[in-house]
Amino acid sequence: MPNLTSEFIANSFRELQVYITDKLEKNDGLAKFSSDEWEREEGGGGRTMIIGEGAKIIKGGVAFSKVEGEITALMREQMGMKGDAFLATGVSIVIHSRHPLHPTMHMNVRYFETNLGEHWFGGGIDLTPIYVDPLLAKSFHQSLKTTCDQFRVETYEAYKTWADEYFYLPHRKETRGVGGIFFDHLKPTNGEDKQSIFEFCLDLGRLFPVLYAAQTASAFPEPSEVQLSWQALRWSRYVEYNLLFDRGTRFGIISNGRTESILLSMPPMAHWKYNYLPEEGSLELQTLQSLKKGIDWV
Amino acid sequence: MPNLTSEFIANSFRELQVYITDKLEKNDGLAKFSSDEWEREEGGGGRTMIIGEGAKIIKGGVAFSKVEGEITALMREQMGMKGDAFLATGVSIVIHSRHPLHPTMHMNVRYFETNLGEHWFGGGIDLTPIYVDPLLAKSFHQSLKTTCDQFRVETYEAYKTWADEYFYLPHRKETRGVGGIFFDHLKPTNGEDKQSIFEFCLDLGRLFPVLYAAQTASAFPEPSEVQLSWQALRWSRYVEYNLLFDRGTRFGIISNGRTESILLSMPPMAHWKYNYLPEEGSLELQTLQSLKKGIDWV
Repeated sequence: MPNLTSEFIANSFRELQVYITDKLEKNDGLAKFSSDEWEREEGGGGRTMIIGEGAKIIKGGVAFSKVEGEITALMREQMGMKGDAFLATGVSIVIHSRHPLHPTMHMNVRYFETNLGEHWFGGGIDLTPIYVDPLLAKSFHQSLKTTCDQFRVETYEAYKTWADEYFYLPHRKETRGVGGIFFDHLKPTNGEDKQSIFEFCLDLGRLFPVLYAAQTASAFPEPSEVQLSWQALRWSRYVEYNLLFDRGTRFGIISNGRTESILLSMPPMAHWKYNYLPEEGSLELQTLQSLKKGIDWV
Repeated sequence: MPNLTSEFIANSFRELQVYITDKLEKNDGLAKFSSDEWEREEGGGGRTMIIGEGAKIIKGGVAFSKVEGEITALMREQMGMKGDAFLATGVSIVIHSRHPLHPTMHMNVRYFETNLGEHWFGGGIDLTPIYVDPLLAKSFHQSLKTTCDQFRVETYEAYKTWADEYFYLPHRKETRGVGGIFFDHLKPTNGEDKQSIFEFCLDLGRLFPVLYAAQTASAFPEPSEVQLSWQALRWSRYVEYNLLFDRGTRFGIISNGRTESILLSMPPMAHWKYNYLPEEGSLELQTLQSLKKGIDWV
């Protein structure tokens, strides 16, 4: 059993990034990741890996970072952190697909530690289809449930509900997609040891390329104008969510993080139309009506 | 001299909306505004006027609203408001142009009143060119200076500096455009009477279509691919500013405002490219280098 130092966790996350990008490349078959190493003035740094113009992936990134620094007043206020110094390390992914019948997918796992000896994990995976397919949503949630169940019995339901609450656009009264799981402040005090929480995070990371492959397994004919226009509109909702509400994005921007790594989550493009509502009986309206909290996809 | 009740001010703002939309239509020559009246459950309502697919304007809106309600904990915290009840009325405009050599322009004038008898005005106009033309920036600022000078001598410099600070993207180290003027909490206690502050706001509103006509007076040949691609990228910065930082947008979204009226500021579309930097010596890089605070455009 390795000693779970922050250095060991960060190194494992860094390896996880390579594992994931390798699998995503193989699944895409065309595009390759390019890699940017960066350093942070205040301490630490990261590696941002970017992919685009692929057979399946139109734009995406897998970011690793390990940063250390002072706990500022803003971090106390916005994240409820205590102490003087922190260390944070994690892997974040957002992949936007080329075809409107393939989804946008997101994953994040992260570890925090303060100089007071506190430490915790957080993370999540969620699925944002352009067109909701209940069978694909079911298989996505079933895989998450299976992974959660191996960890402990009650987590899936709790983390699924948390994701419904978290990935939500209140001003649109829409969920970001069909949800997934989300958790934060997971500490080795609630009956779990640090090792098993850590392995749960790694399992989630390794699951990401499997889930993405499953969501993009079907090939489709060239998309129609209607499909492409709907995709651009759904992407604008993704932009709204991330810039208005996503805690990681807002925290990164406010705390002087690396802008291009934080905003790798942005889609290649987004369209806004005033007061647009899909036609009665359309597939687009069907999707809109599926973007609700509390749907039992499994 | 009319009695400056909130009702009188709101009615004047409502008339100002018609004045502005009429001038903008005439300048465009092709597109017409459509109008949405709406009511707010908690009290008040507004009229949102939308235009698009014009000869000069690709997407834009002029919004009037007059809302009343309770001062919530969030409003105390985010706006420093005191008392139990407020009234707010104002006109907001964002116009995005079709041609990349024509700009995005914004104007807002607003009036607040609380049940404690406090009242104040706020507002501003700013210019966001896709390509910065120093002569057009100069004439824009000169007109603002002239309008300010008629009101009182020192305002232009103060409000110009305020705009540089306010319309700023810290994560990009860029101003939103070439600035303009911005002011808030302007009260009839600083040597100005309520009437003259109010007339200043109306003058700014009436100046908007004049300024927009001046910025779009030149006709240009069909835009190149490079110009269109730069336009889509600059529009993504506009999205970032409004969703991450703009106080009105964030306040509207958080306080359960009318989403489609708040987000009429969104461009028709936006593109994101990872770590994009224009080529050495290009017009695009020249523009980027002009997006700095403290430039004396006059």
